[in-house]
Amino acid sequence: MNNQLEEATVATDLAVRFAETDAMGVVHHGAYVVWFECGRVAWMVAAQMPYTEVAASGHHFAVTGIHTAYRASARFGDTVRIITRLTKLRSRQVEFSYEVRKALDATLLATGVSEHVCVDLEGRMAKIPAFILERLEQGAIRLLSAQRVGSTE
Amino acid sequence: MNNQLEEATVATDLAVRFAETDAMGVVHHGAYVVWFECGRVAWMVAAQMPYTEVAASGHHFAVTGIHTAYRASARFGDTVRIITRLTKLRSRQVEFSYEVRKALDATLLATGVSEHVCVDLEGRMAKIPAFILERLEQGAIRLLSAQRVGSTE
Amino acid sequence: MNNQLEEATVATDLAVRFAETDAMGVVHHGAYVVWFECGRVAWMVAAQMPYTEVAASGHHFAVTGIHTAYRASARFGDTVRIITRLTKLRSRQVEFSYEVRKALDATLLATGVSEHVCVDLEGRMAKIPAFILERLEQGAIRLLSAQRVGSTE
Amino acid sequence: MNNQLEEATVATDLAVRFAETDAMGVVHHGAYVVWFECGRVAWMVAAQMPYTEVAASGHHFAVTGIHTAYRASARFGDTVRIITRLTKLRSRQVEFSYEVRKALDATLLATGVSEHVCVDLEGRMAKIPAFILERLEQGAIRLLSAQRVGSTE
Repeated sequence: MNNQLEEATVATDLAVRFAETDAMGVVHHGAYVVWFECGRVAWMVAAQMPYTEVAASGHHFAVTGIHTAYRASARFGDTVRIITRLTKLRSRQVEFSYEVRKALDATLLATGVSEHVCVDLEGRMAKIPAFILERLEQGAIRLLSAQRVGSTE
Repeated sequence: MNNQLEEATVATDLAVRFAETDAMGVVHHGAYVVWFECGRVAWMVAAQMPYTEVAASGHHFAVTGIHTAYRASARFGDTVRIITRLTKLRSRQVEFSYEVRKALDATLLATGVSEHVCVDLEGRMAKIPAFILERLEQGAIRLLSAQRVGSTE
Repeated sequence: MNNQLEEATVATDLAVRFAETDAMGVVHHGAYVVWFECGRVAWMVAAQMPYTEVAASGHHFAVTGIHTAYRASARFGDTVRIITRLTKLRSRQVEFSYEVRKALDATLLATGVSEHVCVDLEGRMAKIPAFILERLEQGAIRLLSAQRVGSTE
Repeated sequence: MNNQLEEATVATDLAVRFAETDAMGVVHHGAYVVWFECGRVAWMVAAQMPYTEVAASGHHFAVTGIHTAYRASARFGDTVRIITRLTKLRSRQVEFSYEVRKALDATLLATGVSEHVCVDLEGRMAKIPAFILERLEQGAIRLLSAQRVGSTE
């Protein structure tokens, strides 16, 4: 994948759910892992390669690693913005990276990475089908040029 | 089902998870619905008709209703005891009832009921296979006689 | 509360999260309880009496009961619409009612009710502060007249 | 902290909850983050420095980082064993490390690390109170000698 393509970002806004908070009064750290998932699902929809079609093709992007760094707390009442990038695309692996910011003032709350391998329905490692690789890459290109047009306006 | 069989109880102890609390400082009400599920799974294991075998037979007990009444709060640090009964067993339906108590002093925290219909793998309503009905009933009988022996000691 | 006020509805759309599904391939029944909460939080924001201000006043609407009836399954890839009504408003109690529909075609997936009592920060039952009662009622009136204007257009 | 102390392990067995599975038919990766929390809570109880007392002292061990590597899937019906170690203990920071194994046959399912800083009730970074540091260290020593006695038998 062209290195520049990882600059293709998709932003997803989520209202913090009361159920996501904990007795420290802030959002539980586990919620961010679910938010990352919302972020990559939204990235794939925006790139016109929705995850539902990956699943329909008999494949899954199984999560092999999660890395998260927490900077500041989110609270009930906040809307958070998940900014997602596709940062690796190999024949059998994908990696997405995330920033979680407060939608109101862009305060950085957390960053994260999720690593995935392609598996078939029996859970065995598999090559990512060619049409999926291609559409992910084409999607990133399309997102990136839309951003550039946007940023010169 | 013999009415007495609904007196066959199985108790499951769960340590409250910090992730289950919310910003009110107590356990979020949604956690109880998951605890009920833990309770009925444990009931079925104790009755020697584990849910994994229901699933393996190509059936599911889809949830059609949940009713919960909350009396007192559970907190991080508490262990809760889920006391489960099978309160209805029909050809296509089952119902479980629950009490959630503080394990320490038996304070009643909540009561609840879950209603289920049997469905096949396509989600269509189905008769509960005869072997499942039988083993649930036999399990209840066995649990009940074990309780009676226990209570006379 | 004027009976008509319970016709004031607020609709909230939520993309089903993959984390909300279970091994039956559909959304876990526990997720709906969290969706109801999202619905009433959105209702209160729309009514200009956001829950964050209830909390800031030193009160909580503790959940005392949840009743849910499930009709059809939601799946990953679906967007669900939570349609919320305030169906009871007493000096110490509130009740919200919910419909969960598929956003795409309005298929009814579930209905539900949540019952609440007002508590103070120590968890003791309390009167709902007058300004909160008033703003909830005014909010319902405002929502209702906006709907009526909308429906005649 | 004496390097050997990180060999003090506490094992916690958890029955997989149906609610923890997802539409891939296996446990959702987010559940492991909650299991790690169960593991460290159990470690602290076993070390006689329960987290409830940290909270009662007006402090929290806020999570600053989570790193997880997934090796194999857990399924409904499995019992998982969380094996927890305290792998760093500084004046302001603690780190726990985890292995998640199938209880039945010790298959390694995942490994992970959680990084924490001590914060006060306002969320500001703080020194870990001396009595907490001491009891964590003494707890690790006690756990370690119990293990050694155990392993020579």
